[in-house]
Amino acid sequence: DKPLVVGKFQFRSRLFTGTGKYTTFDLMRDSLAASGCEVTTVAVRRERLIDSEGRNLLDYLDLKRYTILPNTAGCFNAEDAIRHARLARELLTNLENPGADWVKLECLADKKTLLPDPIDTLKATEQLVKEGFQVLVYTSDDPVLAKRLKDAGAASVMPAGSPIGSGQGVLNPNNIRIILEYLKAGDPDYPVIIDAGVGTASDVAAAMELGCDGVLLNTAIASAKDPVRMAWAMRYACEAGRMASLSGRIPKKLYATASSPIDGMIAPTSRHS
Amino acid sequence: DKPLVVGKFQFRSRLFTGTGKYTTFDLMRDSLAASGCEVTTVAVRRERLIDSEGRNLLDYLDLKRYTILPNTAGCFNAEDAIRHARLARELLTNLENPGADWVKLECLADKKTLLPDPIDTLKATEQLVKEGFQVLVYTSDDPVLAKRLKDAGAASVMPAGSPIGSGQGVLNPNNIRIILEYLKAGDPDYPVIIDAGVGTASDVAAAMELGCDGVLLNTAIASAKDPVRMAWAMRYACEAGRMASLSGRIPKKLYATASSPIDGMIAPTSRHS
Amino acid sequence: DKPLVVGKFQFRSRLFTGTGKYTTFDLMRDSLAASGCEVTTVAVRRERLIDSEGRNLLDYLDLKRYTILPNTAGCFNAEDAIRHARLARELLTNLENPGADWVKLECLADKKTLLPDPIDTLKATEQLVKEGFQVLVYTSDDPVLAKRLKDAGAASVMPAGSPIGSGQGVLNPNNIRIILEYLKAGDPDYPVIIDAGVGTASDVAAAMELGCDGVLLNTAIASAKDPVRMAWAMRYACEAGRMASLSGRIPKKLYATASSPIDGMIAPTSRHS
Amino acid sequence: DKPLVVGKFQFRSRLFTGTGKYTTFDLMRDSLAASGCEVTTVAVRRERLIDSEGRNLLDYLDLKRYTILPNTAGCFNAEDAIRHARLARELLTNLENPGADWVKLECLADKKTLLPDPIDTLKATEQLVKEGFQVLVYTSDDPVLAKRLKDAGAASVMPAGSPIGSGQGVLNPNNIRIILEYLKAGDPDYPVIIDAGVGTASDVAAAMELGCDGVLLNTAIASAKDPVRMAWAMRYACEAGRMASLSGRIPKKLYATASSPIDGMIAPTSRHS
Repeated sequence: DKPLVVGKFQFRSRLFTGTGKYTTFDLMRDSLAASGCEVTTVAVRRERLIDSEGRNLLDYLDLKRYTILPNTAGCFNAEDAIRHARLARELLTNLENPGADWVKLECLADKKTLLPDPIDTLKATEQLVKEGFQVLVYTSDDPVLAKRLKDAGAASVMPAGSPIGSGQGVLNPNNIRIILEYLKAGDPDYPVIIDAGVGTASDVAAAMELGCDGVLLNTAIASAKDPVRMAWAMRYACEAGRMASLSGRIPKKLYATASSPIDGMIAPTSRHS
Repeated sequence: DKPLVVGKFQFRSRLFTGTGKYTTFDLMRDSLAASGCEVTTVAVRRERLIDSEGRNLLDYLDLKRYTILPNTAGCFNAEDAIRHARLARELLTNLENPGADWVKLECLADKKTLLPDPIDTLKATEQLVKEGFQVLVYTSDDPVLAKRLKDAGAASVMPAGSPIGSGQGVLNPNNIRIILEYLKAGDPDYPVIIDAGVGTASDVAAAMELGCDGVLLNTAIASAKDPVRMAWAMRYACEAGRMASLSGRIPKKLYATASSPIDGMIAPTSRHS
Repeated sequence: DKPLVVGKFQFRSRLFTGTGKYTTFDLMRDSLAASGCEVTTVAVRRERLIDSEGRNLLDYLDLKRYTILPNTAGCFNAEDAIRHARLARELLTNLENPGADWVKLECLADKKTLLPDPIDTLKATEQLVKEGFQVLVYTSDDPVLAKRLKDAGAASVMPAGSPIGSGQGVLNPNNIRIILEYLKAGDPDYPVIIDAGVGTASDVAAAMELGCDGVLLNTAIASAKDPVRMAWAMRYACEAGRMASLSGRIPKKLYATASSPIDGMIAPTSRHS
Repeated sequence: DKPLVVGKFQFRSRLFTGTGKYTTFDLMRDSLAASGCEVTTVAVRRERLIDSEGRNLLDYLDLKRYTILPNTAGCFNAEDAIRHARLARELLTNLENPGADWVKLECLADKKTLLPDPIDTLKATEQLVKEGFQVLVYTSDDPVLAKRLKDAGAASVMPAGSPIGSGQGVLNPNNIRIILEYLKAGDPDYPVIIDAGVGTASDVAAAMELGCDGVLLNTAIASAKDPVRMAWAMRYACEAGRMASLSGRIPKKLYATASSPIDGMIAPTSRHS
């Protein structure tokens, strides 16, 4: 299998993790290791980066092992998100960390749903691209907005499968199919990464089988009863879904000898290679 | 994780494979190896065991590596199925193969749908149990019939997720949940194995997440465009689903801060251990 | 539209109701009237027919308006069900009610799930057909058992959409599709009636759109907060689903100009007439 | 039941129809009559309003019976949509038709998917509200954009169930639930109308059961094999779904005596009244 390419970065693992909500830094470290991830995302807002005892989350991550993907979680408008993206660049530049070059943009609408705001998300993307950031942009599964974000220069569009922390998986596979059709037309390697909503292993496999290039998740591991074991589950599920998407699955039929497939024909990504 | 126990047998892998529909014996061998299975099922009807060139399928399997699970595929009533189970026992006894002790019972209704016949399936189960077989019985997802088959002495009940070769996965998770509730009441290690209908990796993961003890599949690998790669996908998906089922997944919510979970509470098998 | 024919009976309404669980007889009467049903089913077990004040449910039904369909609810084996079917015949014969000629057979497995027992259901069907009953038989959605019940002489096969009182609608439309294919092959007017599991109006419409000939429900009306209004909803939904099934719906597509339909082609019953 | 109120308008019927795609004007007239609609929407782009023989669609509608809702179908940016909204106002003012006061805004992204463009849709809404239009705005099911459109002054937000003409019904009920939560908070009568994607009667009923205030559809009737009969089906389904949403449905359970409901508790709109 070829590597996942996002802008100037290349990875073998297609599972990105988050660093929030773990009960201890040790548990976070063990879970990240179990997940096999090469990228982990870190919120750069001060109240998220520094815990109540004054400890900096970055001090508990092996920065040689993981590429840090800074994110703007907790920002509720374009200005705030842009400011924190710049802050992240400065911070990681000082650490001589390659993550200084990219950012996961989150412009959220409110604290209740943590859904992304489409207008400010687009505005911030345009500005950050102008400033030379490689922008990985969290968005809804609206295909037209996804296309506009790619057109604005985003290095990767990251549609939500369902609301952050909701554990519902990909609620609308059809929108993801249209997003893939839009964004990969004439550009088959453009990375589309499902971000948010995953609850369990089969959700990850199903997202990959749709033809997505990766999955980013946090709560599903961090808030499981056994995060380390769930991290292993997610790692295998991501591999499984990726390989299945490349293997040319059998069509769905009412029964095996029925004359017509049910919906196998719309699978957009039987990229048998 | 503890091993899967079916009657007198114990296995680490929870993925059982079939041996039908491969274009060549070599492809079959490579796919089985990739799947990591320890059990593979073989149809004992003459026309299935011996190919058009007179070659016996068993000669192409590493009998030291795999436990052979003989099956009665192609039998359309109890008598025929019983006769072929006895034939299988004789055949495998002569080969000094441990698979002589068990059988996967298939009593099918017709060639069009390959759905199991409930009446003859129960009748054959009763007879074969009497004759000392360890019966793994293929059945529909009817929870009451599943319970009757266990009561008749089946070593494992194997409900179909969907019709053989249909690639639709588990169509009715609720029936599987009730089967698990029925069959594992006071007997949590009784093995329930999804047999038939799986199409892709996420189907296997989802079946395991319901709390099933294993998955048996054939067409999904053998008829994929790239069977070896799909076998790897299924192997990882089975591991992923098993681990996820043991990890205590997060509840489903409309959004993360919504007050009520959606259906997390009915997950019957968050067997956090 | 042609009438629904079940054995010697003919009806314009395709919605059958039950008479259980209403808080008062008046509410039952008003709800039945609102539903537009011509058939209502009555449990003949003494503890269900006669309430705690000694009142007989039949005295509160307009026997001129409704055809009574006696049922064997509360019977947990073939013998008990057969006995109550005979009792029903005697009772309704004495009342000179045409419902004496038919019976809705329920042979249940246990009080917890109220799922039908396949073995005793088939046995009782065979016996009651022999005794001249027109048997409408409640069963699971197992297509092979459904076929066996028709072959045994049942006047109508009534598969459950989901467990009695569960409110989940038709959980496995594919099984219903196969049942319709099996039972209507060469016999397009053979009545298949969804019995049990309906929760709301769209469930009824969807069941009819699959090509079923009618729907029987009870809890969804009787236990709604406003039973009379829900009865109206069910009446309209049954009409709506029936007409839609006759109108040749548009195919499902990813979007309107997509080249391939998604699953429109498997709709078994676009009986445009 | 109380009437549907949209801005200054009041209606008893909650089903809005379109006027496109009919093979003849007569069939359109009969279908509209059968649907029981009081509102029908008409595209004001010249190539849609005037047919190849020079006939004006409006001449074939009973303008006393129906309130005309002009729409901007065929417009692919804000400017074009605004221009056509103004044109509609002029046209209907000249006809002394009350429909002069409102407009259904469609700003589409492309001809292939007919998905709405979020940015131009918001921009055009702001402008048209400024010009005194009552704007009913077609949008995706993105809850945040829906909220922004209401905040911009839209008289009704009309989320797509699925792409125009796709016949898939409401693909993501959870987004619709969140939209209803957002838009009806403190304003329970604010009208949310599902626009686009409906394929058959149960789709309409299900949309209403979610708590939506109405449904607008066109292709599902116009392109059915029997449009007049399908129009009747949709009429009844809309009534059925509305009444069901007011009737307090039973909760979903694994089986009736199971201890926990499955997801009944999240039904946002058991507006028992």
